[in-house]
Amino acid sequence: MSLVRVHNFSVSLDGYGTGEGQSMEAPFGHAGTRLHSWFFGTRTFRRMLGKEGGDTGVDDAMARAWSEGIGAEIMGRNKFGPQRGPWENEEWTGWWGPDPVFHTPVFVLTHHPRPSVVMEGGTTFHFTDATPQEALRQAREAAGDLDVRIGGGPSTIRDFLAADLIDHLHVVVVPIVLGRGERLWDGLEGLDERFRIESFTSPSGVTHLTFTRP
Amino acid sequence: MSLVRVHNFSVSLDGYGTGEGQSMEAPFGHAGTRLHSWFFGTRTFRRMLGKEGGDTGVDDAMARAWSEGIGAEIMGRNKFGPQRGPWENEEWTGWWGPDPVFHTPVFVLTHHPRPSVVMEGGTTFHFTDATPQEALRQAREAAGDLDVRIGGGPSTIRDFLAADLIDHLHVVVVPIVLGRGERLWDGLEGLDERFRIESFTSPSGVTHLTFTRP
Repeated sequence: MSLVRVHNFSVSLDGYGTGEGQSMEAPFGHAGTRLHSWFFGTRTFRRMLGKEGGDTGVDDAMARAWSEGIGAEIMGRNKFGPQRGPWENEEWTGWWGPDPVFHTPVFVLTHHPRPSVVMEGGTTFHFTDATPQEALRQAREAAGDLDVRIGGGPSTIRDFLAADLIDHLHVVVVPIVLGRGERLWDGLEGLDERFRIESFTSPSGVTHLTFTRP
Repeated sequence: MSLVRVHNFSVSLDGYGTGEGQSMEAPFGHAGTRLHSWFFGTRTFRRMLGKEGGDTGVDDAMARAWSEGIGAEIMGRNKFGPQRGPWENEEWTGWWGPDPVFHTPVFVLTHHPRPSVVMEGGTTFHFTDATPQEALRQAREAAGDLDVRIGGGPSTIRDFLAADLIDHLHVVVVPIVLGRGERLWDGLEGLDERFRIESFTSPSGVTHLTFTRP
């Protein structure tokens, strides 16, 4: 059976996976780039941008696993874009340009379905008003033998964790206090009891945590 | 000028410094001993109990700093005991037996002052209805040239951080999700900007963070 995985999901010390006030100019609201600066220096990130160079240390080793063996992603609508409610503008096709970084089918959870959008490079956005279980069924079908990634944001990961659908969770604790935004851990009391957990701090100062089923 | 320090303060991944439902039997409520199990194996802790042995690795090195150069502690009333409101029982002299681990004056913040209690081994509990600034003045006077420790619980440390009175903060992030209790980080947005922060994970799986003034 293919696995359901989360990678590179950054949270602040106070558990926020994104800041307050998402907008076109600020995908992570007032958090700005602070949750992800550990990632920007990695070779993996630079390759996503079509650039050379970058660090190949432990942050990169962790970051790299994001795409390995993944056949589909499920994301929440707030990861896809800043619009809420009925789509005012179907021209919006995400933050990632004409050739998004996913290169697989991507299932966007929304109460307002719209036609699928085929992008360059293998990414197709599907829009589905589904429970986590049903969305996972759709994504698994699209992924074939490969794994499914739950891409965020916080409430999407939280919903899948609450439904005990996630097999591998990689969280990056960034030593900042955001104070507001959307929390990852709410409603997940005792989550640690379901997983084997490893922690390690990288030279960039973030702490990588991996949750694996025992 | 003497420093104001916090040591060995454990929080869960979701930022709780203590669980819900404190009682005589459960000083940390439903958290039980989970926030502090990293500490129990250390030589420092075993010495506090008058026992020999214990680990002398990095958890112990961090734990040991708790008493070095400290001349007084300030603690919140909920750290002192489970009673709330007017004292029903002045026979309560804390969780720590006749010879408490502090061996210095300890200032207990409470809206219900009561006479000081002289314990064995150098610990005296004073009870004071004071602002953080005023309590610190009292503790500094008692500490002489030595430093003052802010002992917790979460709301006491939070109040002193909010008032920017803390010079050195050592927090231990334990990879558990408590779900409820009292949070350390609330209302402290941007705290990280006031400190130089170091993080490292120990073999016990906890992450030590030190916040030092730049």
